Amino acid sequence: MNKEVSPGFLGRLMTWGGLWRDIADKVSGADELDNLNPDLPEEDARKIRAGMDDCLASRGGEVSARARAATLGRAYLSLNDQGRARFLEILARDYATDHDRVRDEAAALMAADAQDFSTLQAAEGRMRDALVAPRLRLLTQFNALPRGIKFLVDMRAELVRLSRETPALRGLERDLRDLLASWFDIGFLELQRITWNSPAAFLEKIITYEAVHEIRSWEDLKDRLDHDRRLYAFVHPNMPEEPLIFVEVALVNGIAGNVQTLLDMSAPALDPEEADTAIFYSISNAQTGLAGISFGNFLIKQVVERLSHSFPKLTTFSTLSPIPGFRTWLDHRLSEGEPGLLLANERKALSQVNGAAAEAMGASPAGTKGQFKALLSDPTWITHDPLANALKAPLTRLCARYLVNERRPPRAPGRPATVLDPVAHFHLSNGARVERLNWMGDTSTKGMTRSAGLMVNYLYKLNEIEKNHEAYQGQGKVPTSTAIRSLART
Amino acid sequence: MNKEVSPGFLGRLMTWGGLWRDIADKVSGADELDNLNPDLPEEDARKIRAGMDDCLASRGGEVSARARAATLGRAYLSLNDQGRARFLEILARDYATDHDRVRDEAAALMAADAQDFSTLQAAEGRMRDALVAPRLRLLTQFNALPRGIKFLVDMRAELVRLSRETPALRGLERDLRDLLASWFDIGFLELQRITWNSPAAFLEKIITYEAVHEIRSWEDLKDRLDHDRRLYAFVHPNMPEEPLIFVEVALVNGIAGNVQTLLDMSAPALDPEEADTAIFYSISNAQTGLAGISFGNFLIKQVVERLSHSFPKLTTFSTLSPIPGFRTWLDHRLSEGEPGLLLANERKALSQVNGAAAEAMGASPAGTKGQFKALLSDPTWITHDPLANALKAPLTRLCARYLVNERRPPRAPGRPATVLDPVAHFHLSNGARVERLNWMGDTSTKGMTRSAGLMVNYLYKLNEIEKNHEAYQGQGKVPTSTAIRSLART
Amino acid sequence: MNKEVSPGFLGRLMTWGGLWRDIADKVSGADELDNLNPDLPEEDARKIRAGMDDCLASRGGEVSARARAATLGRAYLSLNDQGRARFLEILARDYATDHDRVRDEAAALMAADAQDFSTLQAAEGRMRDALVAPRLRLLTQFNALPRGIKFLVDMRAELVRLSRETPALRGLERDLRDLLASWFDIGFLELQRITWNSPAAFLEKIITYEAVHEIRSWEDLKDRLDHDRRLYAFVHPNMPEEPLIFVEVALVNGIAGNVQTLLDMSAPALDPEEADTAIFYSISNAQTGLAGISFGNFLIKQVVERLSHSFPKLTTFSTLSPIPGFRTWLDHRLSEGEPGLLLANERKALSQVNGAAAEAMGASPAGTKGQFKALLSDPTWITHDPLANALKAPLTRLCARYLVNERRPPRAPGRPATVLDPVAHFHLSNGARVERLNWMGDTSTKGMTRSAGLMVNYLYKLNEIEKNHEAYQGQGKVPTSTAIRSLART
Amino acid sequence: MNKEVSPGFLGRLMTWGGLWRDIADKVSGADELDNLNPDLPEEDARKIRAGMDDCLASRGGEVSARARAATLGRAYLSLNDQGRARFLEILARDYATDHDRVRDEAAALMAADAQDFSTLQAAEGRMRDALVAPRLRLLTQFNALPRGIKFLVDMRAELVRLSRETPALRGLERDLRDLLASWFDIGFLELQRITWNSPAAFLEKIITYEAVHEIRSWEDLKDRLDHDRRLYAFVHPNMPEEPLIFVEVALVNGIAGNVQTLLDMSAPALDPEEADTAIFYSISNAQTGLAGISFGNFLIKQVVERLSHSFPKLTTFSTLSPIPGFRTWLDHRLSEGEPGLLLANERKALSQVNGAAAEAMGASPAGTKGQFKALLSDPTWITHDPLANALKAPLTRLCARYLVNERRPPRAPGRPATVLDPVAHFHLSNGARVERLNWMGDTSTKGMTRSAGLMVNYLYKLNEIEKNHEAYQGQGKVPTSTAIRSLART
Repeated sequence: MNKEVSPGFLGRLMTWGGLWRDIADKVSGADELDNLNPDLPEEDARKIRAGMDDCLASRGGEVSARARAATLGRAYLSLNDQGRARFLEILARDYATDHDRVRDEAAALMAADAQDFSTLQAAEGRMRDALVAPRLRLLTQFNALPRGIKFLVDMRAELVRLSRETPALRGLERDLRDLLASWFDIGFLELQRITWNSPAAFLEKIITYEAVHEIRSWEDLKDRLDHDRRLYAFVHPNMPEEPLIFVEVALVNGIAGNVQTLLDMSAPALDPEEADTAIFYSISNAQTGLAGISFGNFLIKQVVERLSHSFPKLTTFSTLSPIPGFRTWLDHRLSEGEPGLLLANERKALSQVNGAAAEAMGASPAGTKGQFKALLSDPTWITHDPLANALKAPLTRLCARYLVNERRPPRAPGRPATVLDPVAHFHLSNGARVERLNWMGDTSTKGMTRSAGLMVNYLYKLNEIEKNHEAYQGQGKVPTSTAIRSLART
Repeated sequence: MNKEVSPGFLGRLMTWGGLWRDIADKVSGADELDNLNPDLPEEDARKIRAGMDDCLASRGGEVSARARAATLGRAYLSLNDQGRARFLEILARDYATDHDRVRDEAAALMAADAQDFSTLQAAEGRMRDALVAPRLRLLTQFNALPRGIKFLVDMRAELVRLSRETPALRGLERDLRDLLASWFDIGFLELQRITWNSPAAFLEKIITYEAVHEIRSWEDLKDRLDHDRRLYAFVHPNMPEEPLIFVEVALVNGIAGNVQTLLDMSAPALDPEEADTAIFYSISNAQTGLAGISFGNFLIKQVVERLSHSFPKLTTFSTLSPIPGFRTWLDHRLSEGEPGLLLANERKALSQVNGAAAEAMGASPAGTKGQFKALLSDPTWITHDPLANALKAPLTRLCARYLVNERRPPRAPGRPATVLDPVAHFHLSNGARVERLNWMGDTSTKGMTRSAGLMVNYLYKLNEIEKNHEAYQGQGKVPTSTAIRSLART
Repeated sequence: MNKEVSPGFLGRLMTWGGLWRDIADKVSGADELDNLNPDLPEEDARKIRAGMDDCLASRGGEVSARARAATLGRAYLSLNDQGRARFLEILARDYATDHDRVRDEAAALMAADAQDFSTLQAAEGRMRDALVAPRLRLLTQFNALPRGIKFLVDMRAELVRLSRETPALRGLERDLRDLLASWFDIGFLELQRITWNSPAAFLEKIITYEAVHEIRSWEDLKDRLDHDRRLYAFVHPNMPEEPLIFVEVALVNGIAGNVQTLLDMSAPALDPEEADTAIFYSISNAQTGLAGISFGNFLIKQVVERLSHSFPKLTTFSTLSPIPGFRTWLDHRLSEGEPGLLLANERKALSQVNGAAAEAMGASPAGTKGQFKALLSDPTWITHDPLANALKAPLTRLCARYLVNERRPPRAPGRPATVLDPVAHFHLSNGARVERLNWMGDTSTKGMTRSAGLMVNYLYKLNEIEKNHEAYQGQGKVPTSTAIRSLART
Repeated sequence: MNKEVSPGFLGRLMTWGGLWRDIADKVSGADELDNLNPDLPEEDARKIRAGMDDCLASRGGEVSARARAATLGRAYLSLNDQGRARFLEILARDYATDHDRVRDEAAALMAADAQDFSTLQAAEGRMRDALVAPRLRLLTQFNALPRGIKFLVDMRAELVRLSRETPALRGLERDLRDLLASWFDIGFLELQRITWNSPAAFLEKIITYEAVHEIRSWEDLKDRLDHDRRLYAFVHPNMPEEPLIFVEVALVNGIAGNVQTLLDMSAPALDPEEADTAIFYSISNAQTGLAGISFGNFLIKQVVERLSHSFPKLTTFSTLSPIPGFRTWLDHRLSEGEPGLLLANERKALSQVNGAAAEAMGASPAGTKGQFKALLSDPTWITHDPLANALKAPLTRLCARYLVNERRPPRAPGRPATVLDPVAHFHLSNGARVERLNWMGDTSTKGMTRSAGLMVNYLYKLNEIEKNHEAYQGQGKVPTSTAIRSLART
C-alpha cells in the first residue's frame, strides 16, 4: 500500500526553499549556506556543522533558531542524493546522544534501590533526558517553519530508504519516527469526505497517490466521487493539503466481486439511499515518510460508523481486495514441485482440456505435472474458456488455503503466527473475516500477475469485529465464512 | 503569570462525561465503572485497575481501546479529590515501566562497545522503548476522545498540584509533561487576533484567565478590543475553544507609564494608524496544565512582527509590566535591618516629612530606622503628597537595584545567575532591556502591595534583541537604558 | 415587535463615513461635500444637488459613480435631523420621475389596441421604464459601498419616520421599500442558530434588539442560549453582522404558561433530547428600516422544521405570547360603560371580595359598576389573593373574547375582517390556533399594564396549519381549542 | 463573449428535480404534475394553469406556495423544447398584468394635477403596482428553492432564445431580466481569485465556459493558474458554485502581443513580484441567462485595483484581445470592390510577390484587384513568408482603420456613434485606449478566420480612464496611442 517518493519531490521542496527565504534572511550568516556544492564535500560539510551548532545553541533565542533551521532546510534541499546522505549522516553521528552521559545514567539505574519507587522514577527520568539527542531537538525546530512538518515527513521517507544501506542512519530514522508518531497521533487526524467540490490540488494528489487501482483521468476520478461512491481521507490539520491515507467506497446492492465492473465509468450511478452494501475497494497510504505509523484500522472503522449513520439501509460492510502475494506463493510451491498441490479430479479435468488448450495457446504438450505451472505463466489462459473453467476449482481452492493456512513466523515471542498475505493480515487484525473469493475479479495485467485474476472480500460484521480481532491477534485463528472454511480444508 | 485550576473545573469535566457516554457505551463492561464511590476505596480501585488492563490490552482493537479510555475518563471525573489522587497513584505506580527490563537494558548499554556507533544506537533505542511506561500509552488514548486533549491538560494541572506532596506522582507528571510538550510544539500553535467579533464563549475565557489586570465586565473587555487595542492569543487547533496564552497591547504615542490611564474606559480611542508605540500591558498564561512549556517569547515576537507589518509607523515596542517580587524582596531586606538601604540624603528628606506624615497617618514617631519599614506597611502613604515625594527617590532607586542586580543561583551548572524578579527574567531572556521605572504606575491594591505602586517598561528593540538575549543568557548581563543603569549603580 | 432607531445610530454611521473615505477620495471634487453646515442651508443644498447630478451622470464610468455615492453618503451622515430631512426632500423631489414622459406613456397605454398582446406588453414596458426615478438609480449605487446596504436600511428607517409628517417623502420611501423588498427576498436569507459561540458583537445586538422580554445582562443572554434553549435569526449574506428578525425557543415538557419561570436564570437546564414541546417565547424584528417586509412566518416555520428534524421527540410547537392590545381594548370598553361586560356571577363574586379588597388596597367603596375599572387601574390587585381569584374568571373570559371575536375592518375590499390584536393576527395568518390563556403568565409591569398579567399560547399543529391559514385568511374564522371556544362564547 | 446553453443543461436541471422532490411532496396535489406529456398538450396545460393558480393564491401560506413552486419547477424541467415554450407562453399571457386596471391607472395619471407632487407620486405608485404582473410574483417564489436562482437564470436563457421568435414572450423575458438585474446588483457580487486550490467542480465550469481561448485540458487550466497567472471571477453568494464572468491575467514584462506564447504550457513561470505588466488575455461571460446585465467593467477595474495593491511594481495594465469583426468587415468591403482599400505601394508590393505566391499556393494569376480578396480566403498565406510580409502593412493599417473609424449608428438619440467592433466598444466604454496591433498575434484557425491573425492591446492607464471614458461616451472620440492614430489616418 506504499509508494516510493514521487519524482516531483525535489521540485516541490525547492518551492519550500523559496517559502523559507524571508525567514532565513533574518539571521546573519544565512547566506553562508546558500551556494553549496550539491555533493556536500568536506569544506561545505563544515559549514553545515557550524549551522547546526548555531541552531542548537539557540543564539538569539528560539525565534532566531527558527531562522537558522530555515537556512539549514534550504541547504538540505539544494543537495543531490549523495549530498543529502552526507548531511543526514552528519546529523545522525555528530548530534547523537552523549554516550558518556548515557553510560553514567545506566550505571545510576543499576545502582538504584529497586524498592524505592520515587528514586527509580527520577533515575529513569534522567536517563530519558540523556537519550534525547540534539539531532531531535534540531529536527523539532523545522516544525515551526511553514510546511515544515511535510518537510520532515519527506525527510523521513529519504531516511527510510537510505538507512536500509546505512545502519548509522537508523537511530536518526527512529528518532524521527517517534517524533512523527507523536505528532500524527490518531486524535489529531480529521476524517474528511473528499468530493468533486474538494480543491483540485488535493484531488490531483489523490490521483497521484492511488496505489491499488490507478486513476486514469480526471473523468475517472469524478466517477469515483459520484453519488454512489465515497472517498474518505485522514488529514492532519497542519498538513491540510496532503492526504495521509484514503479509502474508496462503492455503495451497491450485494457484495461486489469484480473491480472492473465497479470502476466502469459508463455504468449508471445508483441511488445511494437504496444501497444495502458498502464495498471498500481501494485503500492507499499516501505518505512514505509515515511508514510504520498505522491509521488504516481507524480509517475503516470511522468510515463504517459514518456510513451507517448516513445510510440506515446499509447492512453489509465488505472490502473487495487484491491478494498481492498469492501468485508468488503459488509459483514458489510449484517450483518446489509440491506433489499434493492439485487434487486428483482437478488434475484430471485439467488434463482433459489440456491438449486442446495447449494447441490453442501454442504451448507445450499436456498432462505432465509441469503443465499447471506452464499454463499459469501465460496469462492468456483466462481467454480460453474450457481451460479457465478447469483452472477455476484448483486456483480458488489454493487461494483459500493460501489466505487462511499459510503463515509467517510470529512477529514477537509469545504471539501467534500471522498469515502470509499482507492485505489479509491487515484486515484480519482489524477484526474482519475472509468472506468470499471472486473468480475473475480483476483481470487486469496486475490482477493476473499477482493473484491469477482472483479477488477476495473481507467482511466487517459490526458485532463480530471485537471477537474476530481477539481470535486472530490472540490465538492466530482466521475467521472465515463457511464456504471459505470448506475450501481451505480440502 | 499562572492561575490555579478554576472552581468550574470539575463542573466542566462532568460535561465531558456526557460527551463521552456514547463512545463508552460501545464496549461491554462500560457500566462497571459507572457508580464508583467518589473516594475510590479499594474494591472500586480494583475495578479501575481492571479497566486500565483492558484498555492497554487493546481488546477488540484500538477503537475499543478508545471506548475503554472514555469509560476510565468518566470514572475519573466522577471522583472527588481523594479519589482522584488514588486513581493517579494507581496509574503512576502500577503502570510504570518494567524495572527489570530497564535494568537489563542498562546493563546492555554498559556492556556495549563505545566505538560501534550503530550498536550503541540500537541499544539506546531499546532503552528508550523500555522507558515508555504503559501509563503513557494509556494516557495517549484519551487524545482520540472529543476534547480529550483538554482533559489531559487539566489532569496535568491536578498532577502538578498533587505531586508537590506525593513524590510517587512525579514520574507520571513528567510523562504527561513530555507528551504535552510534543503536542503543543510551537509549530502547531496559531496566533489569533481576538476581537469583539470573536465567539462570546472564547471571550468569557479571556475574562476568566486574565491574570495581571482583572477584566471587570464585558464593557471593560470591549474597551480592550477597541480600535487602538489588540489582543492576541496562541490557540492549538485541537483545542480551539481555549486560549493557551494571550497578550494585550495598546497602540499609543510615547511609552506609557500608567496602567490606570491605559485601562480607563472613558478615554477616547486613538487612530491606530498614527500610533508610534505598542505597549504590551498584560500577558497571561491560561492553562495551568501546560506549566513549564514555554510560549511567551514566541508570542511577543510574533505579535511584534505582525504589528510592524500592519502599522508601519510603529517604532517602539515596550511592555508596561508589574514588578511582582519587589516588595517581598524589600521587606525581607528591611526585616534584616540592612543598614545601607537608604542613602543619607534620602534618609534626611524622609525624616523631614516624617513627623507631619506620621501625625497625619496616625503612625509612630519619626526619624528611626524602622520608620521606613513602618511607612511602607501602610499603603495610604501614597495619598500623602510630601511623604510620597520623599519616598519616590529611594523606592525607585531600590527597585532599579532589585531588578538589575539581585540574583538567584544559576538554574544549571555553568549557566550565569538569573535575576530575582520572574517577570524581569522572562523579558530579559527574550532579549528585552530594562527601560524605565514608572512612579505611581499602578496604585491599585495589588500594585501597592507587590511593588509600591511602581511599574516598569521592558523595551524590545528589534535590532538589539539577539545581542541582549546573548548577554543575559550567556553572561548574566542585564541590558538597561542609561537612566536605569545610573539608578541601579547608586 | 419593532424598535425605534437606536441612539448609537448616528455614531455608527459616522464610522461608515470613515469606511468610505478611501473610496470617496478617488474622484476629484470629493472634498466639496466635506464640511457642510449640518442644517444644510440652501448654499450647501446646491452642492448636494451638484453631487447627485454627477453621480447620476456616471462621469468616469460606474466605478467613479460609486466614489461619488460614497461622497454623498458621507455628506448625509454629517447632517443633523433637519439637514437630513432637507437632503431627502431634494432627493425625493428633484430626482423623481419625469412626469411629462410618464404622461406620454399613459396616453400611449390608453391608445393601445387591447387585443394586441405584444404591443400592450411593449407599452407597459416603456411605462415601467418611465416610472424608474433617477433617485432610485442613485440609491442603488450605495449597495456597492462597504455596508452600503445597512446604510440604506437605516436611511429607510429615517424615511419611514419623516414621511409620516412629510407626504412629499412618501414616494421615495416607497421606492426604497420596493428596492429592499427585492434584495431581502426570503430566498436570500439564511436561518442561523445563534449560540454562546457566536460573535460577541452579534450577541450584543441581540441584547439591544430584543423587544419582548428584555435581556438584562450577558448572563441572562447566556441562559437563553443554554442546552435547552434555542435562538434562531434570519441574516442577509451582505449584512452578516446584523440580525433581521430572531426568535427565542425553550425546549420543555408540556406547554409553558409562565414567562418568568422560563426566564429564571437559576432553573436547571433540561435534557433537550427528552423535551416534548418547543415554546416560542419571544420574536423580535431588528431592523426598523425593513418595516413592511415580512419574514416572521417563514422564520417560525423553518425553525419548526429544523427542530422537528433535530429532536424527534418534539410533538408540540407553541408560542407563549403577550396580548399587547387587551388592556387598551378593555379600558375602552370600560370607559364606554358597556353594561354586559361582566356576567352576573362574576359581578357577584367580585363584590364579595370587594369590600375587604378595597380596604386592603386603600381604594374607594365597593359594589358599583365603576369598581371593576378602578380595581384594574391599580396593578397591586394581583398581590391580593381573594381579589385576584375573583378577577381571574372575568378577565380570562374577556381576554378570550378580545382575541377571538374583536375585529378591525378588512384590510382590502372583499377580504374578511381581521382580529384586533396584532400578535394574534400575525400567528393566525401563519396558520396557528388560539390554544390556551395563562393566568398570571407575565406579572411584570409591562405584562400587567398591557394584558392584566395574562399570556396566550398559539399552537402550531403541523397538519392543521394549511387549513387554519385558509380559514382565517379566506373566511375570517379564528381557529381555537375547545376551551378557548367555550370561553369566548359565554 | 457569450455562450449558448450547454448541452448538459437539461441534465443538470433534472438533478434539481430530485433536489425539490421533498419540498414538493409537502403539498397535496403535487403528484398531479408528475407525469406530464413532454409536449404539454392542452389537457396537461390545464393542470399547469391550475398549479400556477394555486401557487399565486398562496393557499396554505407562503411556505406552501414554495412547495407549489417546486412542483411547477419540476414539471417545467420534465418538458421538451416545445412543452417548455408552451409553459412559458401560458405564464407570459395568462399571468400578465390586468390591462383594465393598467388602463384605469393611466387615466388617473393623465387626470392628475401636475402641480401636486404628492398626488402625482401616489398615482405613479398605484401604476407601478398595477404593472407588477402575477407571473413575476410567481417567478419570485422560485428564489426560495434550493438553487432556485440558477433555475431562473437558466430559464431566462431559454426565454432570450425563444422570445426572438415569439414576441409574446418578450414581456415575460423583460420581467425576469429586471428581477435578475436587481438581484445581481454589483454590490452583491464577490470578486474571487480562482486557484488550483479551488473546488474541482468550479474549475470544471471555468473549462466549460471559457469562450475566448479554449482550455484544452486540466493541465492547460493548471498552467493558467500558475504563479505568474491570475484568474478572477465574480460570484453571487446565492449561486456560489457558478462563475458569472471571469477574466484571465498574465503577469509579464512588457506588453504581450502573442497569445500562443502566453498559453504555451512549456514556458517557465516568471516571478510575479518582478512583473511590470498585467495582460488581460481572456474575459468570458458564463451565464447566458444574465445577458444584458453588465459586470465586465467592474470586473476589470476591481482586478486592476487588487493587482496594483498586491504587486507594487506593476505599472501597465493592458488587454490582449481578439478583433472578432475585422474579417467580416473587410470581406464586406472587398466584396463591394471598394477601390481605395489598398494604397498604391501596398498594391505594388503585393503584386510583386503575387506571382510566386500564387504559384506556390496553387492559386489563380496575380496582379488583379480581386487577388487581395482571393489571397485572404486561403489562410495558408501566413506560412508563405514573402506574401505574409507584403500583407502585413495593408492588413495592419486596415485593421487600425476598422477599430478606430468604422462606426455603427448611435444606440440612442443624442448619443454619439459607437465603434463597430464589439470588443473594442466594451473596452473603450470602460475608459481604455487602443494601444497596439500585433501581427500574427493569434494564428489559430479562429484567429485567422476572424481577424487575419491580428490581435490588439487595449491599454488601461489609471489616470486617463475617466477622461477616455468621457471622450468616447460623450463625443464618440476613440482614444489611441500615437502609432495607432497614424495608422488609422493613412
